[in-house]
Amino acid sequence: MSPPLSDAGLDLLWRRARTHRAWMDRPVDDALLRRVYDLAKLGPTSANMCPLRIVFVKSPEAKDLLRPCLNEGSRDLSAPVTAVLGMEVHFYEDLPKLLPHTDARSWFADLPAERLEYIALRNASLQAAYFMLAARSLGLDCGPRSRFDPRRVNETFFAGTTVKSNFLCNLGYGDPRALRYWRDPRLDFDEVCSIR
Amino acid sequence: MSPPLSDAGLDLLWRRARTHRAWMDRPVDDALLRRVYDLAKLGPTSANMCPLRIVFVKSPEAKDLLRPCLNEGSRDLSAPVTAVLGMEVHFYEDLPKLLPHTDARSWFADLPAERLEYIALRNASLQAAYFMLAARSLGLDCGPRSRFDPRRVNETFFAGTTVKSNFLCNLGYGDPRALRYWRDPRLDFDEVCSIR
Repeated sequence: MSPPLSDAGLDLLWRRARTHRAWMDRPVDDALLRRVYDLAKLGPTSANMCPLRIVFVKSPEAKDLLRPCLNEGSRDLSAPVTAVLGMEVHFYEDLPKLLPHTDARSWFADLPAERLEYIALRNASLQAAYFMLAARSLGLDCGPRSRFDPRRVNETFFAGTTVKSNFLCNLGYGDPRALRYWRDPRLDFDEVCSIR
Repeated sequence: MSPPLSDAGLDLLWRRARTHRAWMDRPVDDALLRRVYDLAKLGPTSANMCPLRIVFVKSPEAKDLLRPCLNEGSRDLSAPVTAVLGMEVHFYEDLPKLLPHTDARSWFADLPAERLEYIALRNASLQAAYFMLAARSLGLDCGPRSRFDPRRVNETFFAGTTVKSNFLCNLGYGDPRALRYWRDPRLDFDEVCSIR
């Protein structure tokens, strides 16, 4: 029975948080990226699996590798960091470590490839959401983005592995002057929820 | 450049939050479920889509419908509420409302069924994570669960629709005395992240 988040906290994570596309000239330290991950990793997943993989694209050289993977008209890489959020489709190889009291590896290891990717996608997406909210928790702004060529991102950043890209997320300190004043609508409670 | 979450907030959402399996005898008001959704809906998704669908199972009658969908040995429904988290595979039908300034419906409407489900799964899982963290933000505890028959849940709660189940999540006020004192390990930053 914990007291709820303060109004400032609710604003930071939810009510005043926005997807940013323009960034202040303020760097993001590597130590802060570590702190973001160290919060995000605590969020719950199925069987305690940890399929999320992250490449933080920060240097000019890494941005030059990422740029041609982005769709035309969506090649801006002015954010201090762009996180390439991927998923380890062979996530079960880590389960002896993550859920040591049972043979959880055997629950998944023989599933067909499409089924494994489905489970990886579910749990890596949960973890990607934790990652974005952990970033906001530490005062960073996020700008998730989907307009890229997943095959090319896989070849560029995950070649020779069983990791596949999920989506990208810019990180930094958003410039509030560049936000539109309105927020796109969402579906209301009564449109998508029922209480039975 | 917002100040980060307070220590109490970081504890509430991340550091002291745990998956609960035993519950205090304290009800969860419908108004609180609405407040949880009204925060969760604000989280970012691709093209502002809102594929998340929720049935809150609260009454004894609804629990009697859910119980036979659960795996043997995982049929405990003592939590005040169990949320059935689903995904609308035809999410694109809502896009004219959610992204009104462009024809986003046409980006998705002709995709094959498996591709639509893949996109719905990614975004409904992001929204499911927002939902759990929104619940924690308002002082609730969560207990996500995967041990159920998805086909039977679909037939019971989503018959005649294009919604599919994703996973379940108990909600209430967890009994801290029932928690194990340890936390299962997670993968460390250097195991899953790189900075380039």
